[in-house]
Amino acid sequence: MSFAPIFSWPVRIYYEDTDAGGVVYHTNYIKFMERARTEFLRSQGIELDVMEQEHRILFAIRALSVEYRRPARLNDLLRVTVDFDAVRSASLMFRQTVFRDDELLCDGSVRVASICADSFRPKAIPDFMQVQLAERLAARAGE
Amino acid sequence: MSFAPIFSWPVRIYYEDTDAGGVVYHTNYIKFMERARTEFLRSQGIELDVMEQEHRILFAIRALSVEYRRPARLNDLLRVTVDFDAVRSASLMFRQTVFRDDELLCDGSVRVASICADSFRPKAIPDFMQVQLAERLAARAGE
Amino acid sequence: MSFAPIFSWPVRIYYEDTDAGGVVYHTNYIKFMERARTEFLRSQGIELDVMEQEHRILFAIRALSVEYRRPARLNDLLRVTVDFDAVRSASLMFRQTVFRDDELLCDGSVRVASICADSFRPKAIPDFMQVQLAERLAARAGE
Amino acid sequence: MSFAPIFSWPVRIYYEDTDAGGVVYHTNYIKFMERARTEFLRSQGIELDVMEQEHRILFAIRALSVEYRRPARLNDLLRVTVDFDAVRSASLMFRQTVFRDDELLCDGSVRVASICADSFRPKAIPDFMQVQLAERLAARAGE
Repeated sequence: MSFAPIFSWPVRIYYEDTDAGGVVYHTNYIKFMERARTEFLRSQGIELDVMEQEHRILFAIRALSVEYRRPARLNDLLRVTVDFDAVRSASLMFRQTVFRDDELLCDGSVRVASICADSFRPKAIPDFMQVQLAERLAARAGE
Repeated sequence: MSFAPIFSWPVRIYYEDTDAGGVVYHTNYIKFMERARTEFLRSQGIELDVMEQEHRILFAIRALSVEYRRPARLNDLLRVTVDFDAVRSASLMFRQTVFRDDELLCDGSVRVASICADSFRPKAIPDFMQVQLAERLAARAGE
Repeated sequence: MSFAPIFSWPVRIYYEDTDAGGVVYHTNYIKFMERARTEFLRSQGIELDVMEQEHRILFAIRALSVEYRRPARLNDLLRVTVDFDAVRSASLMFRQTVFRDDELLCDGSVRVASICADSFRPKAIPDFMQVQLAERLAARAGE
Repeated sequence: MSFAPIFSWPVRIYYEDTDAGGVVYHTNYIKFMERARTEFLRSQGIELDVMEQEHRILFAIRALSVEYRRPARLNDLLRVTVDFDAVRSASLMFRQTVFRDDELLCDGSVRVASICADSFRPKAIPDFMQVQLAERLAARAGE
């Protein structure tokens, strides 16, 4: 039995990410989390532009919560992780963290809904994506 | 007995606020909430630049949670409200909503800490601000 | 003979607008210029969402140049002006400035093209808008 | 005689970079250019946080001009190039482009001044950086 490692994505801090407090502006960690989710999905063969154009699916954020523990600063190289709970028919709950080396800077959860790109109503996540994500969950659990 | 009305602040949606889904990008509602908190504090005589320069205090976000209910779009005129729970010595919990006319688009809570602008450690909210906010709370409760 | 005053729009600086240099981040002045252009057009009866939905026209930026003279800071209240040169069939050249009181902080020019929202090809500015802008130009010139 | 290749840096487009026109929002290309300049300087051993903390130098943008030729879209992988003209005592003129494969999307020039982080007045670029950049210029010219 082995466990698939958690997915992580590097983010470098530029001036655009900071504010006059001298640290990273709070909403930018949430953007970093989205970059990491997007790259996680890409690593699973799921591309957001293909989902929209071929499947008419957008992923909309329904809820998020974030705890800010320590600030990041200009030039820092951060590591953003992505994990998720059980997939439901039209939504996903992600768990994410942002680290600088071994230091936890912030963490949060993001609930994402699969919606129709035309009507904006809930639309079932396609089977291929359900299967892909279920396999990933099993790999993470070491099954 | 009368109740002070809830504070609200108008926000107009420009292209800068939107994304390729055709709606307002999710982190921007959190920026709008901060604009409204800043204007609420200004309406109470509390200016963030004075707090930093004269009192060496920054207000840092410790935690936030947001629920997204309906999307805003280009050119919409939104109304962002600000309310808060009991003030503690070095932190404040805000409750906020974003409306378009009578339609609730999103709502959330934001925990803000008062920290020293030099050490980034917790620093007591100055007395004048404690008093000002306590009076506002009482007015909201109709006392 | 009288001259119509130049259009101007107020912009307040929040943390979201600043960077770790302690000043407003450079691209944000360009966003402020766009807010002012949008409000100028609205003052002339031209709404961007109506242009897109009813006329299938988007206004795309083709070129811009900006000179940065002095920095703005947190909490500053700026004034962004909008003027423009002669209107052509499918493009407009705007001249803009950003002031804090009587101090010029930055100025620039922005060339905007009228394009089809579907094909992204140049599309003539509708007559009603041509007429409206020509009248405005004449009023500015004191004719 | 050989020529050092031009420096380039990859940028992936996420939702945060787009607007309701379905394309990348215009100021974001300017941010991408700054990311590439920062990474170019890093490749030359010049770190912006070290410049500020040890040399009390900030690099402030004095002027920029950009031409937008074709739009980038969600999920595109762009390549941002960085080149520069002769270095002066306290300023640098960068030339930059943004490509998607072989397609030029936008290009521009950015004039950056070296200023004192305390007084915001012009401050000479340190010798080590002058030498490093002069060598790079010579290598680019194939000298």
